[in-house]
Amino acid sequence: MTVTHPKGFRASGVAAGLKPTGNLDVALVVNDGPDFTAAGVFTGNRVKAAPVLWSQQVLKGGIVRAVVLNSGGANACTGSQGFRDTHATAEHTAAVLRGGPKPQLIGAGDVAVCSTGLIGELLPMDKLLPGVAAAARALETNGGERAAEAIMTTDTVAKNAVVEKEGWSVGGIAKGAGMLAPALATMLVVITTDASADNEVLDAALREATRLTFDRIDADGCMSTNDTVLLLASGASDVQPTPEELTAAVTQVCHDLAQQLITDAEGATKHVAIEVKGAASEADAVEVGRSVAGNNLVKTALFGNDPNWGRILAAVGTTRARFEPDRVDVAINDVWICKGGAAAEDRSKVDLSGRDVRITINLREGEMDATIWTTDLSHAYVHENSAYSS
Amino acid sequence: MTVTHPKGFRASGVAAGLKPTGNLDVALVVNDGPDFTAAGVFTGNRVKAAPVLWSQQVLKGGIVRAVVLNSGGANACTGSQGFRDTHATAEHTAAVLRGGPKPQLIGAGDVAVCSTGLIGELLPMDKLLPGVAAAARALETNGGERAAEAIMTTDTVAKNAVVEKEGWSVGGIAKGAGMLAPALATMLVVITTDASADNEVLDAALREATRLTFDRIDADGCMSTNDTVLLLASGASDVQPTPEELTAAVTQVCHDLAQQLITDAEGATKHVAIEVKGAASEADAVEVGRSVAGNNLVKTALFGNDPNWGRILAAVGTTRARFEPDRVDVAINDVWICKGGAAAEDRSKVDLSGRDVRITINLREGEMDATIWTTDLSHAYVHENSAYSS
Repeated sequence: MTVTHPKGFRASGVAAGLKPTGNLDVALVVNDGPDFTAAGVFTGNRVKAAPVLWSQQVLKGGIVRAVVLNSGGANACTGSQGFRDTHATAEHTAAVLRGGPKPQLIGAGDVAVCSTGLIGELLPMDKLLPGVAAAARALETNGGERAAEAIMTTDTVAKNAVVEKEGWSVGGIAKGAGMLAPALATMLVVITTDASADNEVLDAALREATRLTFDRIDADGCMSTNDTVLLLASGASDVQPTPEELTAAVTQVCHDLAQQLITDAEGATKHVAIEVKGAASEADAVEVGRSVAGNNLVKTALFGNDPNWGRILAAVGTTRARFEPDRVDVAINDVWICKGGAAAEDRSKVDLSGRDVRITINLREGEMDATIWTTDLSHAYVHENSAYSS
Repeated sequence: MTVTHPKGFRASGVAAGLKPTGNLDVALVVNDGPDFTAAGVFTGNRVKAAPVLWSQQVLKGGIVRAVVLNSGGANACTGSQGFRDTHATAEHTAAVLRGGPKPQLIGAGDVAVCSTGLIGELLPMDKLLPGVAAAARALETNGGERAAEAIMTTDTVAKNAVVEKEGWSVGGIAKGAGMLAPALATMLVVITTDASADNEVLDAALREATRLTFDRIDADGCMSTNDTVLLLASGASDVQPTPEELTAAVTQVCHDLAQQLITDAEGATKHVAIEVKGAASEADAVEVGRSVAGNNLVKTALFGNDPNWGRILAAVGTTRARFEPDRVDVAINDVWICKGGAAAEDRSKVDLSGRDVRITINLREGEMDATIWTTDLSHAYVHENSAYSS
């Protein structure tokens, strides 16, 4: 139920000593073909980690034969040495795969690199490169779950997903936990499919899927330097789905992984869906949803089981979306505590004791909807993020 | 050292029972003239509380003879009844002042109204109106400090300021604590001067002062529905300073109050100055400073005494400001831990044990600077804001 479910892929996860805990920290996902088409979506942050800059170049070539991933260090803000280290990692990955039991025609330019962990420190290459070699030796056709485990940082569970279609499938792994945000979260995601698809179709499918899933979750509004979502196609199923079928399946896997990410976000005690209805445009609906999702006062109120709809309205008021303050309705868990911008049903009717919370905002301006998923802001969030690098 | 320091003003603070604690909760500031010129700056939030909508209309008339303020309820998101309540408060204030020991030619249209507290609930008018009458009876020429006390919400100390010039002065009171944000914080501020100045001069002075002070503090990025900054001039000194002199003095009072607000922000354990230097424009410097100030990962790191400059760079990367990631330098408390976008001096040299923190970001693009002041994100912030309405 992971990246090695689609035919044509092997994966592995090993402990190279990058994490002081001794947990798995280097992962490899290899596409054995016959196709090697790929697409990628990367962080919108202008400060991009070395592996992002590298992988963006790799994706321009349109062929990805392997993805090497490490936790235990982001290799971001590491200057030219950081970029040389990423390059060396890709070269080494290509070299060990050329010499492996299934020798491949592979160069560094076919190897995407992903890193996650603390920003601003060089990776210990004396540990990483032997780790890559060990990961190559450990490759298995059922190794996806170990790869998912090896990319965890503050994640508490590994994230895997699969969608099974007629004769072909899509699989995925992801890591997230903190810095989930609009325009990509801190996350590394590798999606595989044994469908046959050219680069344009893959690219369109991945962009549409990302727009509707990863781009609509927001844990703390912070945009990472390392976010990467890759989609690799092996064509090993000999099935060529329509672009619509492929997009739907990739979106389903991304949705599944995105929900796992937000459920496991750092310190979250709530899983919050913010449904914006009646917007004049989808962009308005998304802007309103994100504004509410990113509002610390709304998030702390949810942590305190407090149906503080006034804070929700105040967050809506900071957007440029089309709305009139005296027409907006707000429900929390289906209790319409605000109608026409003022108090309506009794707030004591709202039961916030469970983990799942649904906030519904009706702008009464049009027909467009969007849902943004987020978390509360808890003591555990403050604790994890004040202690992360120490 | 407060709003009643300039000549021509009386003020008071009384307990009307809006706060369950029995603390002072209704304040009155009265301008006894001979001038009644005024200026106001209000929240940029599109969801505006009834008293904001009212006071904006009052200010259009250019004359303010009294300001009535209450804590214990924001009168925001309260629909048409909320607006009628604000109107009734202004009418009642005018009526009791007309009948007082210093009878005034005053109508509701000369009375600005400010409210602060929980959003979404109607004010208890049966308590507020008798409170207004009591406040009118309690007016004193040294009553400013009691007025400052009466507008506190989660503030731990009352905020007062004075700047003394040759023969004239400027005084102020403020409340803040939470929701301090760009484009105005949750705050109510009343500034008085006995200088003589027409409305245009007052307006220009207040806008310039606000832009450089209240608009450059950010506690939690949340924009309130009630923010109001009023400047009243009595002309009682018979001195007419130049517009530049007046602007400088008003800016000084606003700076003093803004620093008091950020020092007392909810749950803050740090007072953080973010100095952005070398920007291509002042707007760039402000955007970068605000992005860093609003970043929860930066703020939790500061709470944890963690000089995590990578998170600072990641926050800079989310802006549209002109900069190159490999040219940016970052210092924390004067230790340049990041040079050219990569690690430089040893992070262990950074001493974050004190309350005051200075983050310096040099974009190396131009000559423009700006400083934004903020706080850390602490357990106490989460606690206060998850428990506020319960």
